[in-house]
This record gives sequence, structure tokens and C-alpha cells, in this order.
Amino acid sequence: RNDALRRTNQKFLWRCVLLCVKQSFALPTWVHCILLSPVQVANNMMDMDQDSRKRLCFADGRRKVDYVLVYHYRKRSSVRGSPSQHRLSIISNGSYPLGVEEKDQEGGKDEPAEVVVDVGPPDPADGEKIMIREEFEGNLKDAGLEIEHDKENKAHGHAFIRLHAPWQVLSREAEFLKIKVPTKKVRHSRLLHDEWARYGAFYKYQPVDLIRKYFGEKIGLYFAWLGVYTQLLIPASVVGIIVFFYGWATVETNIPSQEMCDEDQNFTMCPLCDRACDYWHLSTACGTARASHLFDNPATVFFAIFMSLWAAMFLEHWKRRQISLNYSWDLTGMEEEEEHPRPKYETILLQKRQRKKKNKKNKNEVVTLNVFLPSQTGHEKLTWRDRLPGYLINISSILFMFGVTCSAVFSVIIYRITISALMAMSPDPEVKSNVRVTVTATAVIINLVVILILDEIYGMVAAWLTELEIPKTETNFEERLILKAFLLKFMNAYAPIFYVAFFKGRFAGRPGDYVYVFNDYRMEECAPGGCLIELCIQLSIIMLGKQLIQNNIFEIGIPKLKKLCRTLKDKERAPKEIVEQPGRRQQWHLDYDLEPFDGLTPEYMEMIIQFGFVSLFVASFPLAPLFALLNNVIEIRLDAKKFVTELRRPDAIRAKDIGIWYNILSGLGKFSVIINAFVISFTSDFIPRLVYQYMYSETGTMHGFINHTLSYFNVSNFKPGTVPSITSLGKDITFCRYKDYREPPWSTEPYQFSKQYWSVLAARLGFVILFQNLVITMSMLVAWVIPDVPKNISEQLKKEKTLLVDVFLNEEKEKLQLIQSFRGFDSPGASPHARQVCFSL
Amino acid sequence: RNDALRRTNQKFLWRCVLLCVKQSFALPTWVHCILLSPVQVANNMMDMDQDSRKRLCFADGRRKVDYVLVYHYRKRSSVRGSPSQHRLSIISNGSYPLGVEEKDQEGGKDEPAEVVVDVGPPDPADGEKIMIREEFEGNLKDAGLEIEHDKENKAHGHAFIRLHAPWQVLSREAEFLKIKVPTKKVRHSRLLHDEWARYGAFYKYQPVDLIRKYFGEKIGLYFAWLGVYTQLLIPASVVGIIVFFYGWATVETNIPSQEMCDEDQNFTMCPLCDRACDYWHLSTACGTARASHLFDNPATVFFAIFMSLWAAMFLEHWKRRQISLNYSWDLTGMEEEEEHPRPKYETILLQKRQRKKKNKKNKNEVVTLNVFLPSQTGHEKLTWRDRLPGYLINISSILFMFGVTCSAVFSVIIYRITISALMAMSPDPEVKSNVRVTVTATAVIINLVVILILDEIYGMVAAWLTELEIPKTETNFEERLILKAFLLKFMNAYAPIFYVAFFKGRFAGRPGDYVYVFNDYRMEECAPGGCLIELCIQLSIIMLGKQLIQNNIFEIGIPKLKKLCRTLKDKERAPKEIVEQPGRRQQWHLDYDLEPFDGLTPEYMEMIIQFGFVSLFVASFPLAPLFALLNNVIEIRLDAKKFVTELRRPDAIRAKDIGIWYNILSGLGKFSVIINAFVISFTSDFIPRLVYQYMYSETGTMHGFINHTLSYFNVSNFKPGTVPSITSLGKDITFCRYKDYREPPWSTEPYQFSKQYWSVLAARLGFVILFQNLVITMSMLVAWVIPDVPKNISEQLKKEKTLLVDVFLNEEKEKLQLIQSFRGFDSPGASPHARQVCFSL
Repeated sequence: RNDALRRTNQKFLWRCVLLCVKQSFALPTWVHCILLSPVQVANNMMDMDQDSRKRLCFADGRRKVDYVLVYHYRKRSSVRGSPSQHRLSIISNGSYPLGVEEKDQEGGKDEPAEVVVDVGPPDPADGEKIMIREEFEGNLKDAGLEIEHDKENKAHGHAFIRLHAPWQVLSREAEFLKIKVPTKKVRHSRLLHDEWARYGAFYKYQPVDLIRKYFGEKIGLYFAWLGVYTQLLIPASVVGIIVFFYGWATVETNIPSQEMCDEDQNFTMCPLCDRACDYWHLSTACGTARASHLFDNPATVFFAIFMSLWAAMFLEHWKRRQISLNYSWDLTGMEEEEEHPRPKYETILLQKRQRKKKNKKNKNEVVTLNVFLPSQTGHEKLTWRDRLPGYLINISSILFMFGVTCSAVFSVIIYRITISALMAMSPDPEVKSNVRVTVTATAVIINLVVILILDEIYGMVAAWLTELEIPKTETNFEERLILKAFLLKFMNAYAPIFYVAFFKGRFAGRPGDYVYVFNDYRMEECAPGGCLIELCIQLSIIMLGKQLIQNNIFEIGIPKLKKLCRTLKDKERAPKEIVEQPGRRQQWHLDYDLEPFDGLTPEYMEMIIQFGFVSLFVASFPLAPLFALLNNVIEIRLDAKKFVTELRRPDAIRAKDIGIWYNILSGLGKFSVIINAFVISFTSDFIPRLVYQYMYSETGTMHGFINHTLSYFNVSNFKPGTVPSITSLGKDITFCRYKDYREPPWSTEPYQFSKQYWSVLAARLGFVILFQNLVITMSMLVAWVIPDVPKNISEQLKKEKTLLVDVFLNEEKEKLQLIQSFRGFDSPGASPHARQVCFSL
Repeated sequence: RNDALRRTNQKFLWRCVLLCVKQSFALPTWVHCILLSPVQVANNMMDMDQDSRKRLCFADGRRKVDYVLVYHYRKRSSVRGSPSQHRLSIISNGSYPLGVEEKDQEGGKDEPAEVVVDVGPPDPADGEKIMIREEFEGNLKDAGLEIEHDKENKAHGHAFIRLHAPWQVLSREAEFLKIKVPTKKVRHSRLLHDEWARYGAFYKYQPVDLIRKYFGEKIGLYFAWLGVYTQLLIPASVVGIIVFFYGWATVETNIPSQEMCDEDQNFTMCPLCDRACDYWHLSTACGTARASHLFDNPATVFFAIFMSLWAAMFLEHWKRRQISLNYSWDLTGMEEEEEHPRPKYETILLQKRQRKKKNKKNKNEVVTLNVFLPSQTGHEKLTWRDRLPGYLINISSILFMFGVTCSAVFSVIIYRITISALMAMSPDPEVKSNVRVTVTATAVIINLVVILILDEIYGMVAAWLTELEIPKTETNFEERLILKAFLLKFMNAYAPIFYVAFFKGRFAGRPGDYVYVFNDYRMEECAPGGCLIELCIQLSIIMLGKQLIQNNIFEIGIPKLKKLCRTLKDKERAPKEIVEQPGRRQQWHLDYDLEPFDGLTPEYMEMIIQFGFVSLFVASFPLAPLFALLNNVIEIRLDAKKFVTELRRPDAIRAKDIGIWYNILSGLGKFSVIINAFVISFTSDFIPRLVYQYMYSETGTMHGFINHTLSYFNVSNFKPGTVPSITSLGKDITFCRYKDYREPPWSTEPYQFSKQYWSVLAARLGFVILFQNLVITMSMLVAWVIPDVPKNISEQLKKEKTLLVDVFLNEEKEKLQLIQSFRGFDSPGASPHARQVCFSL
């Protein structure tokens, strides 16, 4: 026990090899950090070849290479892009107070403002660069790191510097980070690549512990989250399939669709467009009515409730998993570090300070412009005034993007309206019969393409907008970026779906008083089977298309292409060296050729948008969880492969949770409740059917429902020029029917909304209230019943604490005895000094 | 800095005088703990009289009395009541392992099951008692406490034992509790009583720090919470008054109430009861219509939104305040302790274990019944099986109580219906004219009395039910008790209000088809001015009555009465001693005469029920916050006075937050949103007015609204025997009017709900959805915008951390130098052993 205590006090840790290198290292632009790529490390470690292991060590063959820096000797590298210009400002050419660099490394624990010194022009000359670099290396050495240089080789284009973090440094840093001693047994790490990054392993659990050990907590958490999500998709898919089959099995016994298909009840429907369209029989829409029943049946209501609870359950389950992982990864005591401010923030702050100083000086007419007083300005920061323009641009840009999305949706609508009108007027009967299929298919594909293109654009816009806001720290930046990107991409992906679900066909007007756009084209209506089936088609195509295309093209194709480009460029640039020194190509040369790591945001974003498809409109498409599940099984392995073999090894970042993504998830979960309530009550025919059955039906059954939903229209009320020109049915028709609840032509208020309309509306709204409050209450209950901390973990924690207390008590006693033996026990007041005495010995 | 470090390491604390004595001390039933009463301590400290200070010390005049135990020499005291019988089981008559008592004191850190040994009969003889007591004292001495006895004086009835906790013990315990060193300056404590417990000080902030220092964190938090709540009631009251005055100012220009009062528009209304009632003119209800406008105007909608946001703001504000307090009271690092199981739980567990053992033994037919194997049974616990009967009784009892509440409400309704019917039939015109006033007043008073009586009963029932559930720890017990008591009391207080708000008048039927109860009496209707005014009256009377009566009778009167009783009893019992030894009456004798402390639950409960009045139905009664504010200003000082002078000083309990009360508050806040939405849309006339103005009014103004809301009834459709017998107006009437949206007699569906009815219903429901989602979104926004941790606190915390790191770093360096000077610096691996070396020196 005493041994355990000592170890606890010393708080050393093996794992800090990964942890002590942090992103906030404040490197110059032209320094690239690469970590050894996973596959090769694994291979090297496995075959235990003495020679190749040596290659991963310093020249003395003993000290391990923990980190590799790359210097470029060209002008600023094109890989980093333009925003990195500002990064230069962080590098000091003044003198650091001793020990500041150490803090820098830890995320800048105090007065980072003092460190910043203006470096003058943003493009320093080569000589200046070398000076900066030497100082940087000097600081690294001061911090206790050991450095090994390559032989300088300017023609090569970049030089590698290898760092080794000695044990002493690691344990000191670990102590600051409050890393705990691993008290649990960890199974040995074998071959990550084979265990995880294969498609064949799809049925196995992911080796999350290994992932975390290799990539750090942040990426480990992502894969753990993805695992939990995918796992919970399984029950959801199963229930979804059951619901779907329930619809499939009951389609024959469903009275409304039977009535629609019944050719005896020959409802003559009003034409769907002016002049060109003919009257038509409702029984021709039999097919869509039957298809519609597959998704629009009472089981759907149950499924929507189920999925809302599922979402709540998922969040709770993840919370528990997260706490388990925190425990087993020894993160329970981890505290938030104060982060180093972003270079950009520092620059702007510096500019502001200088401007202020200048103003001051101009006023006082003092000439000593070069005097710099860091102590005065240490407490300055950017206020909302400095950020106001950024915020304004932000809000207006987001509104503008919102407009862009809406107009994209609207243009697709216009496309659909015009094309279908044009095609309907075409004399070719072949064209005419295919109108709906052609138009719907092309429109959805256009939609999909627009979504994919805007998705990329919005990603860039969000980054640009966040940069304008000048967030202080990297975490801050990431959160804001994620929130904005999510807003924009969410809007983009869902705008057409929202349109179909809630707006399509609702502004079409009624026969004789249709709504026109551009004075010429009628607003489109839903298919006779109802909007739900269209929503379902739209949803499935966008979901599948987005996933397939993003997986194949964006995640596999483009990185490969980029890599190819880079390799070609490098070859062009320095063909000689490679040919000359093939034997000298070290591990770090190979790793440098890999793609740099861009952060987890795109991976999370893809999954969250998918979660939206699964939760938001699940009432209209019960198969969504199944498609998501299939996608994710592939996605996990694809991501794994990418991380292990395609990307440079990312810096390990500690993280306790998945951050803002959790909030977004829980927000989506809440939003999905109201959306599903509206889909069920307004998009589907569930409520009208219920109202008919219990309020209007004389037999208490659904017989006569179709007749009840159709209003009468007197064909003599058609406006001039809108009567069907060529008609096969309309010879002796006086009344045609249309789907709406309006007064018949013979009532006192013809074509006004009827009492049925209002009672159905009231029922729909009442259902929304009922559904929403019921589901919210149930979700809260679920969240309340499932404890956040799993029982075994909380017990484990208590046990550990008890152990600590025991050790402590024993030590206390020993110490007391020690003191007593030294100078006797004279008064009770002596004991608090006991420790002090021990220390000063 | 080094000094600060040492102090941190030693973690001593002055304040543990209060903290090391905890409720989980596991005292025998007949041991009472009293702490010195506040006023006298304060007085004694103030006048600095050497003699009286000595009285608070041990006989040696140096050691302070920290805690006083009282032994009764009679049979079990009646003060503790029956449940304490079971407390005996915790006291062991076996041998404790050394140091277990220490843990006991700290809340039982490990294997509490081993401590329990059966003491046999629940009523131990006096000799056994003394044995147990001696062992108990022995354990206290083992734990390091020092004890001083009174001279034993059996005739006296009770003996006092004074405890002193030496410095050494305090610092050890403080270390376990992770109490931090006070690093901030605390202003000196002057005279709590004068600063706080006076009515005159109502305008001042409460000296929360002093309260906490004296009473401990838990009570400190209660008063801080009460302070924040009261403070935030100020803006709410101001806005409420403004809303009320807005209604008052616009009553003259309000068209609906003008129309109602207009005697030219002489609407002849249908009689409100069968036979006895006459037709009446609407203009006679002018008064209530005007009064109704005071509370039912557009500003009310705004106020309801405002109050929902206010509730969200209050919760956020409290969170911040709590964190500030946690910081300034050094609770930030406090961890949850594992609590000692409750004696009752232990007893039941023991019984179960013995039963099991018995069964086992019966099977094996082993005769050695007295062998006890604690190690085998250490991991047993009560499962849901053991608790099932308790849960079942719980659920059924709560349902039964629910039934009781409902039937209480229903009987008041019946009372109202019958009395008004009887009075209406009375020939005396004096009686007749006062029907409504008399009935309403008496009914509300009956309601109030029923509520107050049931409140007390429910409190006891909740305690009994919780006892049945056998919760493991005291905290657990408290939480379950609070939840149950809250549910029952909430239901009790709000059932009549819910009835008036949502049910009254909705099941009354229509003229010619009234709904009857018991075949004789008609269901009651709301007053002609609308139900809102009745709701308002009900609400104000219950709220005011409950507060006044509870404050005066329950909080002041009853304790005084109890004290009187106790004093009388004591005098009867032992009149001689007091007469004989008046000079020997010590402080603890005086304190023992005070009322014991019962916990904070009643105080919180009162405030939470009040919070319900302020938030739930605020749409109907904007003055509620004002009344609450007035009550609380008095309440704070009343509670303060009670705590300081009327009660024994409660044991100090550490607490980080207000526990389950926060959840109840936030639940009430959420519930209030939907309730207010329903009150506005269904109880008030807000929506019908809007619908009329924008859908039916020809001029776009409110003119004609009253006419629109009244339906026609053909008097020839009255059922036989229900026509008014004596009538002054009904001579030549063919149609009378009633307030409802139904088809006129001449329509095709006479007396069915009209289209207006459905459209208004749809609008009402739509409003509920809109209001609910709008307010929820805004509340979430408020909660999101206001950061949980105040900025200065988070900065302070960071600074402290930086300081600690610096100290740590310096120490590290010094140590390294020390080691180097000892044996030189040979390898990097030596450093982790540095500390070890230092320790072993």
C-alpha cells in the first residue's frame, strides 16, 4: 500500500509519450510536425528487427524518436494555405523569461500576452527564419527535450528534426496534466491495423482502447461514439423493418387504399393543370395509394414515439459509455486546461494595442515610438466592439446562405413546375405518360447535386466566418466553426425535405382558383397518394445518394487524388535526391508523404447529418435506421483504414467528452419530436382517418373515407381558358372532385373551408400537443431512470478512494511516530507541523 | 509561495469544529445531541466576560466545548418518536476493529456491514444501556475526542457529556473531507442575531457567509437560495404590477367589456338553472366583465412569456450564485462521501441475513446456531425483491391519496352546487341576491381548510411511505421523501385551481341539455365574466390564506405551544433540581429546552409551492409575484429568528447544492410553460377575440364580438319542467342566448358545434403549440447564453491553479538540486525516485 501511495504521489505515466506533444506548441508556419505513421510503427515493432527499430531511434540507437519536425526551405508551403500567414506572429525574437516555453507547451498557463513580440513583416527573410528557428530549438532544449538534426541539406527542400522527450520531462508534464497512474491491467497492444482497419472485422467490437492508446483520447472517443451509435441502430432497424412489413402485410385489408383502387367507386377528379390536363379517375392513383400505406399506417405513430425514445436512450447510453471510458482511460480527474490563444487572436490584439499606443503617443507627441511596455497591456483583450464587424458579417452571411439554400430549393421547384407543364403540353403521348417519373427523378438528382456542392462551399464559408469572429482559443474556434457549419449544412441537407413535408401542395389553391407563380405556371401539388410517399422518396434518395457519394468520392477518391498530385509535385521538385539516396529514406520521409490530418469535424458532421435523417423524419421513412446501419458498418472500417494508412499520425489530444457534438445531438433529438409530430399529423393521413372514423363515419369503420375527403367542384365555375381542351371523360360532367375539405358549390359559402376542415385541423393540432408532451415526458423519464454513472464504475471509484484514505491514514501514523521519536509528543498543536518537519529534513 | 504550498498540503481548517460532527454519528436513541444555542454563544463572545466564556469550556477553562451529548435515564424519550427504535441496531456490543469508529464518524467509508451486530431485544435493559454507552464513549476516545462528564445525577432525568475535538483530530478529519485552506480574507463575524434575524433589516442583503459559518453549508445554501429567489421576485412583481395597471387603464377603451355593459344591446340570456332561475340581461354581468379585463388582456400573454423566461433566468442565476458560493466557501473540490447506511436498512438487512442463515442451517441441520460469519455476508444487500411490497404499497397509497384529493375537490363542488341550488330556491330575496358571493366565499374557505389539513396528513404519509421503501442512506431517504411529499402536497394545493382553470363550466352542457350530477343538481358554470376571474379569486385566496396561516400558526404558534408544553412537563418531572440548583444551570441546559431541528424540508417545501403559484398560473394572476415577494421579505427574517433563537443549533452539514429541490424547481418551470399556454388559450378569451378580429369581424375591430360569442336557443326547446317558473322578462321571448359556439335552432344541425367552434378550437391549440415551443426555445437560449460559471470565478480558479503549478515547479527544482548534491545526477530515470528519496529521509 505504501508503494501504491508513492506511485500516486509521483504520478508518473508511460503514456505521456503521446500526451506531452500538444497542438498548442506554437510552431512557425514553415515547421511541419509529423508523427510516425501507424502502420510502419506497428510493423517495425512487430518484426522486432533490431535494425529497423534503430531507425526509429536517435543515432545512439537508444533514445526513441517521439516527434519529428520538418522545416521547409522554400517560401511558405502551399499545403498550409493562406490563413497560416498569421501564425508567424506568435514566434518571439525577444528573450523569453526562463520557463515560459514550458508553459507554452502546456497550453500557456500564464500571461501569454507577454510572449508576443512583433516580428515585423509577415514574410521574414531566410536569415531571420533561421534565427527564429534556432531560438525555437533553444527553447525546446530549455524545456528539457533532446534534439537530433539531419545533416543540413538545403537542396532537399525540407529538413527533419527529431525530438526525444526524456523520462524526466514526461513525468513532470504528466504531473501537471494530472495524469493518473494506471492502476488497472491493460491488455497488450497487438497490430492495430489487423484488428480494426479491415472490412472483415465488421461484426467485431472495435478495439477502442488500442485506438485511444495510439491516436489519443479525442479520436478514441469518436470511434467509441460511432460504435455505440451503430450498435444502437441495430434495434432501431429491426423495429423499422417490422413496421415496414406491418404496412406491407396490411395493405390488402386497408379500406382507404381499397376504396381508392375500387373501380366501381368511380370518382371523377378535377384536372391537375389548366387546359392541357384532362379529368381523371381516382382509381388510376391506386398504385401510389398502396405504396403510401407501406409508410403511412398506425404502426408509424408507434415507430415515431419509439424513435424519439430511442434517441433519448442513445444519448443516455453514450453518457454512460463516456464515463466508463473516462474511468478506464484515467480521465476522471482531468481538469480543463487554459489554452494558448490562437495566433490570429494575438495578432489582432497586438494591432489593436499598437493602434492604441500610437493614438496615445500622437496625443502626447512623444517620439520614442519603439518603447514597448508589455506590463501595461497584459490585461487587455478583445471586446465585443472589436468583434462587432465580424458578428455582423456573420449574421448577414448566414442569412444570405439561408437565402441561397431557399432559392436553390425554389429553383428546383420552378424547374419541376415548368418542365412538367412543358412536357404535359407536348403532343407526344410517350412523353406525356412519363411526366411525373422523369420530372421527379431529374429534380431529385439536381437537388442532390446542389446539396453536395453547397455542402463543400458551406464548409469553407463557415471556416471563413469563424475566422472573422476572432475566437480566442483553438477549442473556442472549433466550437464556433462546428456550430456554424452544422447550421449551414443541416439547412442545406434538409431544406428540400422540409419543403416536401410541410409546404408542397399546401399553396396550390383549389380548382377554379389555383395559385400561379410568374403568372403562368401553377404551384405543384402532391401525388394523389399523398405527400408522404413523395417525402419518403425524396428522403431515401437524398440519404442514400449523399452517403454513397460522400463515402466513395469524398472520402476515398479525393484523398487518393490529392496524394497522387503531391507525389507528382514532389517528384518534379526533387527528383534527384530520391533517386540518389533511396537507402536513406527514413520512416519520417515516408510519413511526410501522407495526407495531413484535418480534424474530426467532417467525420462527426457526416454522422450527425445522418442522425438527423434517422431521427427527424423517421415517421415517414421507417427504413432510415437500416440504411444508416448499413452505411455505418462500412464507414467505421473506412475511417479506420483512412486514419491508419492514409493520414499522418495525428497529434494525440486529450478529451473527456465529444464536446459540442453532444449538445447538437441532444438538440436534434428534441427537435425531432416536434418534427415527427407535425409529419404524422399534417403530412400523413393518420388524423383525418381517425377523425372520420370517430366523428363522421356512420358505421364506425373506414368505409366512405375517400368520399369524405373529396370536395365537389362545379365545372361551370372554371375560369375562362382553364377548362380542359381535349377531354375524353369531361363530356357530360357537371361536378368533379378534388382532395380538400371545402364547402360544396351548393352551400351558402361555396368553396370556403368546411366545418370538417376546422375539426380535422383542431384534431391535428391537438395531436401535435399530445404527441410532443407525451414524448418529452417519456424521454425525460428515460433520462431520469438511467443513471449517468454506471454502477460498477461508481463502486470502483469509491473503492479507490477508500484505498487512498487507508494509505493516507497509515502514513499519518508512521509520520507521527517518527516525530515522536525525534522530539517527543509535547502538545496537540504540534501535529500540523509534522509534515513541514518531514519536508525540511 | 512555499508557505502557501505547505499550508495546502496540510489542509488544516478552523471550520471543522462544525464539520467533524456529522449526523451519521450513529448515536443510541437515548442520546441527544445539542449544539450550543446561537444567541447565547454570540452574547457570550461579545461581552467577553472571562467567566461566562469559561462556562463554554471544560473544567480546565482552556478546552472549548464543541459538542454536547445528553443521556436520558428514563425509558425511550417521547421526543424522538417510534421510528428511532431501530436506531439501536447500529450500536455494536461486539468489538470494533481499531479505527472503525473514525470511519463511522466520517460516514462509514468501508464495509459498514461488518460493524453491525445484533443487540437482541429492541428495548435493552438499563444495565445494557450503560454498557453500550461506555463502549460508545470509549470509541469516541479512540477517535481522539476528549470527554468531560457531568457529575452523574440519575434523578435529574438526563446527563450531559461535553466533547472537545482537539486540533489534531480536526485537521485529520479535514484532510479526509478535502477541506481547502481558506485563501481568501473573510470579514470578521460580528453578532449574527443583530445583523440578520430582525425585521428591520429586511432591505439589507443577508449575511450569508455568517449564516454558513454558524449553521453549516446546507442551511447557508437555503438562505442564499431564498435570498436569490426573493431578489428576483422584485422585477417580476414590478412587471406584474405594470400589467395589472395596463389592464386597469385600458378597461374603459376595451370594446368587449363596453359591449357587455351597454344596456342598449340588450342580450336576453338563458336562465342559469332549471325552473328557479329567470332569464337575465347580459348587462347585469358588467362588473365581472370589467374586473375580468384587469387580468385578461393582451399584456397577460406577454407577462406569461416573461414569467417563463424569468423562471429560466432564476434557475440560471441560482446556478451561478451556487458556484460563487461553492468557491467562496471552498467547496469546489468537495467530493461526495459514501454515506453510512440508515439503521433501519441495517436492521432489515440483518433480519434477511439471519432468515437466510436459518434456512440454510435448517437444511444442513447444523446445530451451531450462534456462529456468526460476517465475512460471508459482507456483500449482501437488499434487492428489489425485498423492496417490492414497499413499492406496491407506495404506488397504491399515492393513487389513493390522489383519489382523496380529487374527492375533496369534488365534494366542495357538490357543496357549491347543492347550496347554490337550495339558496336559489329559497323564497327570501335577500338570500337569493347573495347566492354567488356566499357560496364562493364559503367554498373557497372550505377548500383552504381542507388543503391545510391534508397538507399535514400528507407530510406524515410521505414519511411513512418512504420508510417502507427502506432507502439505504439518509440522503437517499431525504430525496425520496421530498419527492413524495412534493407530489402529494403539490396535488393537494393545486387540484382545486386546476379544476377551476380547465374543467369548470366545460361539462355544463347547453340550455335544454344540461348535465346533471346525482340526477338532481346541474353542473356549475363559470360566472358570466368568464372562468378567468374565478380562477384569479381562487388563486389569490388560496395563496394568501396558505401563506398567512402557515406563517402565523404553523411556524410561530405551534413551536411556541410545543415549547410551553415541554417546559411544563419538565417542570412537573423535576421541579426540585431546578429550584435547588439555579446557579448550576449551564448553557447546555438552556439549549436543551429549545425545539430540536427537523431539517429544511418544510421550509423548502413552502417556498416551492409558492414558486408554483408564481409560475404556474401567473397568466391568470399577475399580482402573484408581488404577494410572494411581500411574504418572503417577512419569511426570511421569520426563519432567521426561528433558527437563531427557537431551535437547537442544528448539526452542520456540508452540501454543494440544494439537491433535488433544483430538479423540482426546473420541473415546475417546464410544467409552467404548458400550463400557462393552456390558461391563455383555453381559460382566457384571448384567442376567441383574435379569431373574431381577424376571421369574422367585418370591420376588423372588436365591435360585435359579444354577439358573436353568444348562441341562440329556442325557448320552446326547453325540456318540460325546466322552464323558469316565475319570470319577469320571459313573457314574450322566443330566443334566449347562451355563451357557446353552437349552431342556431334554425340550422340543419341545431345546437351542434358550429364551424366557429372548430376554428376557435384550432386556433387555441395552434396557440398552445406556438407558445410552448417559442417559450421553450427562448428558455433554452437564456440558459445557453448565461454561462454557468461566473467569469470572475473561473478566472480566479485558473489563477489559483497557476499558483499551485508554480509552487510545485519550484519545489521540484529544489528537490532535484537536493538529490544531485546527494549522489549526483546519473541517469534520466532517477528523477521519479526523487520524491521517494525525500520521503525516506
